[in-house]
Amino acid sequence: MTTSTALDRFYSVIPAGGIGSRLWPLSRADAPKFLHDLTGSGQTLLRDTWNRLAPLTGDQRIMVVTGRAHRKAVEEQLPELADHNVVLESEPRESAAAIGLAAAILELREPGVIIGSFAADHVIHRDDIFRRAVAEAVEVADAGYIVTVGIRPTEPAIGFGYIHSGGKLDVPGAPSALTVESFVEKPDQATAKRYLASGHYLWNAGMFIARADRILEEIGRSEPELLAGLLELAAAWDDPATRGPAVDRIWPKLKKIAIDYAVAEPAAAAGRLAVIPGLFDWDDVGDFASIAKLHSGGRKRDLAILGENARVLADSSSGIVISEGGRTIALIGVEDIVVVDTADALLVTTSANAQKVKAVVDALKLSGRTDVL
Amino acid sequence: MTTSTALDRFYSVIPAGGIGSRLWPLSRADAPKFLHDLTGSGQTLLRDTWNRLAPLTGDQRIMVVTGRAHRKAVEEQLPELADHNVVLESEPRESAAAIGLAAAILELREPGVIIGSFAADHVIHRDDIFRRAVAEAVEVADAGYIVTVGIRPTEPAIGFGYIHSGGKLDVPGAPSALTVESFVEKPDQATAKRYLASGHYLWNAGMFIARADRILEEIGRSEPELLAGLLELAAAWDDPATRGPAVDRIWPKLKKIAIDYAVAEPAAAAGRLAVIPGLFDWDDVGDFASIAKLHSGGRKRDLAILGENARVLADSSSGIVISEGGRTIALIGVEDIVVVDTADALLVTTSANAQKVKAVVDALKLSGRTDVL
Repeated sequence: MTTSTALDRFYSVIPAGGIGSRLWPLSRADAPKFLHDLTGSGQTLLRDTWNRLAPLTGDQRIMVVTGRAHRKAVEEQLPELADHNVVLESEPRESAAAIGLAAAILELREPGVIIGSFAADHVIHRDDIFRRAVAEAVEVADAGYIVTVGIRPTEPAIGFGYIHSGGKLDVPGAPSALTVESFVEKPDQATAKRYLASGHYLWNAGMFIARADRILEEIGRSEPELLAGLLELAAAWDDPATRGPAVDRIWPKLKKIAIDYAVAEPAAAAGRLAVIPGLFDWDDVGDFASIAKLHSGGRKRDLAILGENARVLADSSSGIVISEGGRTIALIGVEDIVVVDTADALLVTTSANAQKVKAVVDALKLSGRTDVL
Repeated sequence: MTTSTALDRFYSVIPAGGIGSRLWPLSRADAPKFLHDLTGSGQTLLRDTWNRLAPLTGDQRIMVVTGRAHRKAVEEQLPELADHNVVLESEPRESAAAIGLAAAILELREPGVIIGSFAADHVIHRDDIFRRAVAEAVEVADAGYIVTVGIRPTEPAIGFGYIHSGGKLDVPGAPSALTVESFVEKPDQATAKRYLASGHYLWNAGMFIARADRILEEIGRSEPELLAGLLELAAAWDDPATRGPAVDRIWPKLKKIAIDYAVAEPAAAAGRLAVIPGLFDWDDVGDFASIAKLHSGGRKRDLAILGENARVLADSSSGIVISEGGRTIALIGVEDIVVVDTADALLVTTSANAQKVKAVVDALKLSGRTDVL
């Protein structure tokens, strides 16, 4: 006789959405961030994410929530992905709807299921440490908490939200679990330094592990209409005759809200949120400066070069070149530069301006140049 | 009865050689600088040069010395160019050989001819003032001088050589003619400022006007072997049966030397050089910083955009973008940047580094990537 452990009831959910506007012109509507290799691993971030999770749950217990337009690319990346584990959004409606729908579908199929949601486009080094942290999180989730894995900060970053951790939680199998005092927004530099020095703050990496019923319960408390829509949609999901009409009717009306606001912050405020400190390297590669840092090993004087057929000639230049086309690229005396060279679009900026790339995408939209978006 | 004036005996020579390595990747071996429109005039620098000279001499009295590889492109640009006015170099041998051969051929055809040599890839505003200066120079040339048109400097440029002018010359029809004390090499900044303040220094724009026999005489004094080769080649030139073999035999052995060294400097030292101050805007557009300046009207905060189909989106950036391909180019927060975007090569540098572009070309040669040269 075998005993069912919490980990046996664990199911991974990968929300693969978001274009990654700050990574234009690399990321596009038809080639979003998660379909790129930004680490030089030789495979896409989505595939990296799958490979990180599969040892925890097996291939059959990973669900991917993605846009209809990306179905083909996702299935090409993940040939092991089972049909019933593909949840297609007819249009993007943010993370509470995406993860909430996965929770509702899985809870109906398998009451008591524990789900863990992990973005398709983050970078992690030391998958083994990541998996040990998730395994602890699953134990804490089984005890009824909403659990997050917070990353132990290595610098006073101002580009991430933070998790203010509290005292130790006493949950068997989860020796490093802590209570959470609060979620805090991206800080200014001085505040970030204070957070780092205190030792009580972790980066919010948007990883949530919880029993599906607990996630739905939290959504119901903060967004009852959203919950009602998700439950109605989930009830229609597994019947081919009812799914389509339900999606068309319900999905476009669901409230757009991040899971941080709908679930994590209220749960934290009510003392129902726990955190496992993640002692692995993590980055959300949110902009080109972050990719540059990833490749420079922290050395500011380096020039990182990405692209299979990159032909780059550089003289006393630093920063990052991403080359998609294989054209010869010459850099002379440019510092902290960001050059992204694709077939139909070229970006030239600096690390310091990397966050402003989204504004270009907005400007292109406004000017009707959607062919390069 | 009509009287032959000096100007009636004037013949223009356009040496159309030199790739313009500092303008890579715009200028290439097969698309040198003179075949580009760098001013936004809508036509190439070569065509601009022709149009500037034709009112002085007529279409039938302009000779072009160029490389065999450029014959077709030159003839497309200049449909009026007569066959006997095309002098093809089998390989580049610098300006003394190119201009000396033109002088030798024309002197044989038309003894007493006065020639004026003007680069195919310089930019001049106010062609009318230019032509008046050349007309004066022709009068001084007829009196036996080697004459140059020196540009009145508008700033203490360190990228040009200077002409140190002396007292007034008394030549009828040339009221502004001055003697030349010496030719001086590119100065440092302090020296350039002193030159500008003195009022006695002009920029050397490489324009030489003289009787063909006088040019040959000067070459013969400084480079007798070169003169012998040129005379032998010129004697064989106008017979189709002898030209080819003579070119093959003689041209590759001619000394490579600039006309400044073979003719102008020795003539200046001996008091046989005169100068007409040129009061027009002139630039040799030697690098991208110079093109940027040409288009910014001197305003440092501007972003100049060249290219018929340029699609540039820029936010608080300054410098120059040259777009050949029509790709969307986005610049964010880059100052004094130089971006040159062509089908197979991309250059990113700054105005301050513009002179180093030649080093890239050298490095590409060394690394065997001659496909983009």
